[in-house]
Amino acid sequence: MFNKQYPKVVTIGGGTGTFIVLSGLKDYPVELSAIVTMMDSGGSTGKLRDQLGVLPPGDLRQALVALSESEEIWRKLFTYRFSEGDLGGHNFGNIFLSALEKITGSNQKAVEYAMRVLQTKGNIIPVTTSVCKLCAKYEDGSVVEGESNIEELKKPKSKISHVFLSPQVTMNIEAKRAIERADYIVFGPGDLYTSIFPNLVVEGMAETIGNTTAKTIYVANLMTRTGQTDNFRLSDFISEIGKYVGEDTLDYVVANTSKPDPDLLEYYKEVDNAVPVEDDIGGTHKHAKIIRSDLLSREVFTQGSSDKVKRSLIRHSHERLADTLYKIIDNRL
Amino acid sequence: MFNKQYPKVVTIGGGTGTFIVLSGLKDYPVELSAIVTMMDSGGSTGKLRDQLGVLPPGDLRQALVALSESEEIWRKLFTYRFSEGDLGGHNFGNIFLSALEKITGSNQKAVEYAMRVLQTKGNIIPVTTSVCKLCAKYEDGSVVEGESNIEELKKPKSKISHVFLSPQVTMNIEAKRAIERADYIVFGPGDLYTSIFPNLVVEGMAETIGNTTAKTIYVANLMTRTGQTDNFRLSDFISEIGKYVGEDTLDYVVANTSKPDPDLLEYYKEVDNAVPVEDDIGGTHKHAKIIRSDLLSREVFTQGSSDKVKRSLIRHSHERLADTLYKIIDNRL
Repeated sequence: MFNKQYPKVVTIGGGTGTFIVLSGLKDYPVELSAIVTMMDSGGSTGKLRDQLGVLPPGDLRQALVALSESEEIWRKLFTYRFSEGDLGGHNFGNIFLSALEKITGSNQKAVEYAMRVLQTKGNIIPVTTSVCKLCAKYEDGSVVEGESNIEELKKPKSKISHVFLSPQVTMNIEAKRAIERADYIVFGPGDLYTSIFPNLVVEGMAETIGNTTAKTIYVANLMTRTGQTDNFRLSDFISEIGKYVGEDTLDYVVANTSKPDPDLLEYYKEVDNAVPVEDDIGGTHKHAKIIRSDLLSREVFTQGSSDKVKRSLIRHSHERLADTLYKIIDNRL
Repeated sequence: MFNKQYPKVVTIGGGTGTFIVLSGLKDYPVELSAIVTMMDSGGSTGKLRDQLGVLPPGDLRQALVALSESEEIWRKLFTYRFSEGDLGGHNFGNIFLSALEKITGSNQKAVEYAMRVLQTKGNIIPVTTSVCKLCAKYEDGSVVEGESNIEELKKPKSKISHVFLSPQVTMNIEAKRAIERADYIVFGPGDLYTSIFPNLVVEGMAETIGNTTAKTIYVANLMTRTGQTDNFRLSDFISEIGKYVGEDTLDYVVANTSKPDPDLLEYYKEVDNAVPVEDDIGGTHKHAKIIRSDLLSREVFTQGSSDKVKRSLIRHSHERLADTLYKIIDNRL
């Protein structure tokens, strides 16, 4: 059959979670679009945003690297972080995107040009092209402004009630088009309040997702996140997402079944008070189909190129996750 | 005739002078190699050199941009200078070359990769791949270390006697090959002591140039340079070059005949105590053939993207200069 159309898959998120999904799905016959959060405010990304007035490049950069099919040197450049001098702490990919945005005067053009240079297999779409701040409102009424401040607040006095943007901004028209054309939408994995919801609270996003005929998949996190999803079990993640996109929106939830290494678990517990997300659904869910599989990576990941003390991380295997996702997309699950 | 060999032209210098020669000759049927100084120690280039331990990228960058035949955006990126924040004052091209050198561990590889990205029409060759400092010895016996310190010394107590390197470094083997294969070698235009001679004092350079069968061309400067070539006339420039490469080495000297705008001349005199280089040869020279032509650009050049007060500069026209150079190369002068 000529002109066979590949299924159109849209991922929504940012950071490492989206990187893993894209890295895996890149090798499957799907048409990928990655909608990424523009609310990162920490590290090199936050500094460039504040100092240069550009949109935060970090999440774009990770998606670009994940989908890149260009020479290895480009992926190396885009992940390279300077460790000394004026440029110390800054990532080359962030600098590249910032320079492009300054020259072209457009974040959209910067991303388009970077996609060409990195020869990405798929589109990367900033969820909005307007500058805004992520804010979290806690159940005790307090408000924390700035994505990195929310991330760094390891022991808030109460739970997060909801997140919102200041100012409220409108979704990128390209994101709207991608969602409207999508056959599948994949949320996560990633921190709910700082990677996934920042996308969903952009004006137009929840409505567009609600109106789509696409099937929606949520890839559940492996571990809880201190200060954000402490004590959350699988059902809590699902119902929290329901608050942003509608209770019956999720069609599939992909959950890991295997146990991480006990030493790693101890380390996570000790350092971050993080524990594996418990599958408390017990069989079926009232709306979503729960897909259970061993999704854990056995690779040793290390954190932070400039970190002297490297440590292993509990991560999804991009191969295993993509295999499961593609089985859903291919109607085999 | 198949496989017609274009004349091989090697330029030796750095900075704006080399940029102008390369920009002009790029459009002619010649095979270009640009040997550039690695002794720049000022500005963004000097900081990256000192902070990151890379070779100074500035002169390489200018040659890369001059020879680039890639999309316009790459030339814009390579000439873009950040004006704010941590990156303030740093040029994107310098950052790009530095990141490449850090990743590949090799200045040579960084340059080769940058040549591919910028699709340069010709080779760019660092005169040495070793780190060294340019030093100037003055006639009163004093020594100034560092290219930028020499440049900034506007009123030295005495004339420069000679320049040397600390430590002495050996020429890049690629530079040796290019000179040995050359049909023409073009020196300058550019500051004698800080752009041209830094190349000639690299171990092996003077000897290789002396042994070549290539014809040599010196493009004389339009203006004297305060602190370096004050009161120099054309014959002084020629005899000073003779000290480094042998008195009878130069085959051609290309000198401008037209007068810059009087307002500009007044400005140069007032601000920099610089005057037009007087042609005191009076007809023929004992060794070199003097080619006299109107080489002046009528474009308005402005200095320093971050300079609030822009001013016009007296520059060679790259079209006029290349036209004259190609006439020499093509045996029509």
